Amino acid sequence: MKVLGVVVEYNPFHNGHLYHLEKAKELIGADFTIAVMSGNFTQRGEPAIIDKFSRAEIALRHGVDVVVELPFVYATQDAGGFAFGAVGVLHKLGLVTDIVFGSESADEEFLIKVAKVLHEQPWRYQEILHVKLKKGLSFPNARKEALVEYFREEGTLNPERVKNIERSNDILGVEYVRAIFRYGSDIRFHAIKRVGASYTDEHFRGRFSSATSIRKLVRERAMELVKEAVPEESFWIIEREMGEGRAPVFWEDMERVFLARFRLMNREDFEEIYGFTEGLDKRFWDSAKRAGTLREFVEAVKAKRFTFSRIRRLMLYALFGIKPGMMDKANKLGPQYIRVLGFTEKGRKFLSMAKRVAKVPIITTPSLYKKALEELDEERHEVDDSLFLWMFDMDIKATMVHTLLFPDPGQRDGERDFKKRVIVL
Amino acid sequence: MKVLGVVVEYNPFHNGHLYHLEKAKELIGADFTIAVMSGNFTQRGEPAIIDKFSRAEIALRHGVDVVVELPFVYATQDAGGFAFGAVGVLHKLGLVTDIVFGSESADEEFLIKVAKVLHEQPWRYQEILHVKLKKGLSFPNARKEALVEYFREEGTLNPERVKNIERSNDILGVEYVRAIFRYGSDIRFHAIKRVGASYTDEHFRGRFSSATSIRKLVRERAMELVKEAVPEESFWIIEREMGEGRAPVFWEDMERVFLARFRLMNREDFEEIYGFTEGLDKRFWDSAKRAGTLREFVEAVKAKRFTFSRIRRLMLYALFGIKPGMMDKANKLGPQYIRVLGFTEKGRKFLSMAKRVAKVPIITTPSLYKKALEELDEERHEVDDSLFLWMFDMDIKATMVHTLLFPDPGQRDGERDFKKRVIVL
Repeated sequence: MKVLGVVVEYNPFHNGHLYHLEKAKELIGADFTIAVMSGNFTQRGEPAIIDKFSRAEIALRHGVDVVVELPFVYATQDAGGFAFGAVGVLHKLGLVTDIVFGSESADEEFLIKVAKVLHEQPWRYQEILHVKLKKGLSFPNARKEALVEYFREEGTLNPERVKNIERSNDILGVEYVRAIFRYGSDIRFHAIKRVGASYTDEHFRGRFSSATSIRKLVRERAMELVKEAVPEESFWIIEREMGEGRAPVFWEDMERVFLARFRLMNREDFEEIYGFTEGLDKRFWDSAKRAGTLREFVEAVKAKRFTFSRIRRLMLYALFGIKPGMMDKANKLGPQYIRVLGFTEKGRKFLSMAKRVAKVPIITTPSLYKKALEELDEERHEVDDSLFLWMFDMDIKATMVHTLLFPDPGQRDGERDFKKRVIVL
Repeated sequence: MKVLGVVVEYNPFHNGHLYHLEKAKELIGADFTIAVMSGNFTQRGEPAIIDKFSRAEIALRHGVDVVVELPFVYATQDAGGFAFGAVGVLHKLGLVTDIVFGSESADEEFLIKVAKVLHEQPWRYQEILHVKLKKGLSFPNARKEALVEYFREEGTLNPERVKNIERSNDILGVEYVRAIFRYGSDIRFHAIKRVGASYTDEHFRGRFSSATSIRKLVRERAMELVKEAVPEESFWIIEREMGEGRAPVFWEDMERVFLARFRLMNREDFEEIYGFTEGLDKRFWDSAKRAGTLREFVEAVKAKRFTFSRIRRLMLYALFGIKPGMMDKANKLGPQYIRVLGFTEKGRKFLSMAKRVAKVPIITTPSLYKKALEELDEERHEVDDSLFLWMFDMDIKATMVHTLLFPDPGQRDGERDFKKRVIVL
């Protein structure tokens, strides 16, 4: 049995996503296709433009059999944390045989070589890394420079390619492979070339436009152009959600939510939040006091060594009060449950199999999450109770905030996670 | 030397305020008039419609010599805490001889009798109060019923009048008198009859309209009507602030600020906030999850025994993270500094005298507030350092949040308290 796993955000689902999905299924000859999808917040540190249930529904309508949620605490991390969470979900499901991901280069040998160094941490690599860190470089930069230098010495990879790794989707590819190593998983992986626009491309490119450019079109209500760039059923679900006042949701809608919170925090409060190293606590604290808009805030915080995505993610951590202790644990132990957002009739069969083998509880009725914790199967479930509860609480809170951003006040019930039933197609 | 002290909100300054101010000055034959004024948030638990500097300027233009700020932690309390803070500021200034306040009844004998019972806590009153509390009544209700019963037994006051005390401004009058007793102050007090509309009246009543109705008119941009209800110079300053994008500010602008914060808080977090008794923690927690608007939220929290003002004040405490320990200390020790918002040439003379006798530091340059703490005069300053710092920090944070609500993003610098100079007329 071939079970394909894909890692997606579908924010929103567009023609490029459909193409990639179909290619992947064909490549594997998949009997089942499982998507692990970001919930209501994405890796860019932004709320998703339409909510996770609708995005799951769209995926199911386009050939995915089961959509499970990537917990908030992984979905909003950098490539390393994101991949560790996503691969963790697929690995812990227990039945996934193959992961396919898009990559600029689709050069599997390259991805493996880099991932191996990161995973095995050869002595010489550690030595170079240590020197770079001592020079005062941030960890991501020290790591990149150490990799470049290591491969220059080794001569097994073109160091120039390593240098550019972060600018492309290749960094995610490396992290997927590394995560597979970390879990000791026997899932096979396959990189396929991305098509169409780069995912950060802001310009409309017709049929194959990026999700970024499509969100921009939605913002401008240029729905005729959106229609060109997304499959039909994705389009009408987006329109349905907009019509019912649950979409679109934009990061800018969080302006006063973020700024008021940050202005009321003390500098020491930032110090206690995950990821606030390199003077970011002071930068956040100072900038919040002065900035009148979100744009001004991120511009004020920005320095060469921080990307905007990283700043936006840190803003979420500060808003949600994410502490290093729990996040470090999450990044060590991986996902503690598998939350099902939706499935097809075929997907139902898969889930009934998976429920017997999964390494963590599979949750289809979120209101009973505490029961799931009481009914663990000691034989195969490996769950840390406090991590489970925290991780789940963060998903619930993410929905609490996301629903508050719905345009129609009548739709803003924050308990959507408990009241909205799993999507069955 | 006669120094008149008045306690005001001026949100905004209207014809009734002017009438009251002039009456009070005449009554006392005041050499100087000092107003202690709420800062950027008011006793209704709302942000002031225009900021404290502009409101201070208006007061100075209408015959007040010095405007000092009632610290946020008192300005946003019920009648007891509000009066204790306000009288505390005037008392600690050291030179105020007379306080004049408006009251429905202006029956000083009545106010004194009630205040005396509250202050002296006669044995019989305590006994009745104890029974009422045991019956499960909230403290304010138990207190009211105990007063009614106590005076019925005593026969010295009409118990029916005591029953209605909270519905009128008389409760504030009682609390002013009681605060004077508590400080052991020799300030004389005078109650004068209020004129015009009740301060909660929502309807426009022409020349003597309530502040509530005037704010409503500003909201509707019915500026021609506003013009009728406020003195000329109050009007043009309101218009100036609106023109410059710093006004008007409304409670409704805090919708997502409040709801997002509350949705991200846990029930136990509410339990740690000042004033969350009587199941209010659960009511807040439940309501925040479901409410899509502020109006829905307060309606959901509301029960017969809570007023909307009390709910809005509690919302501020939760947002600002006000803990019982500090608030109780504030309600025991009184204001720890006197922050000057503005003064006239005449007021300058008063301040130079007051600086030599005040019981707490007088702060005219807020950026130097830490210096004020270092340069205390041990002879006469009675200051609790940690209370001073906390109280001051809350004023600064109140401004941080208030400025964020300014319509023009370019005006939202949160450090207005440090950058805007004291108003000198």
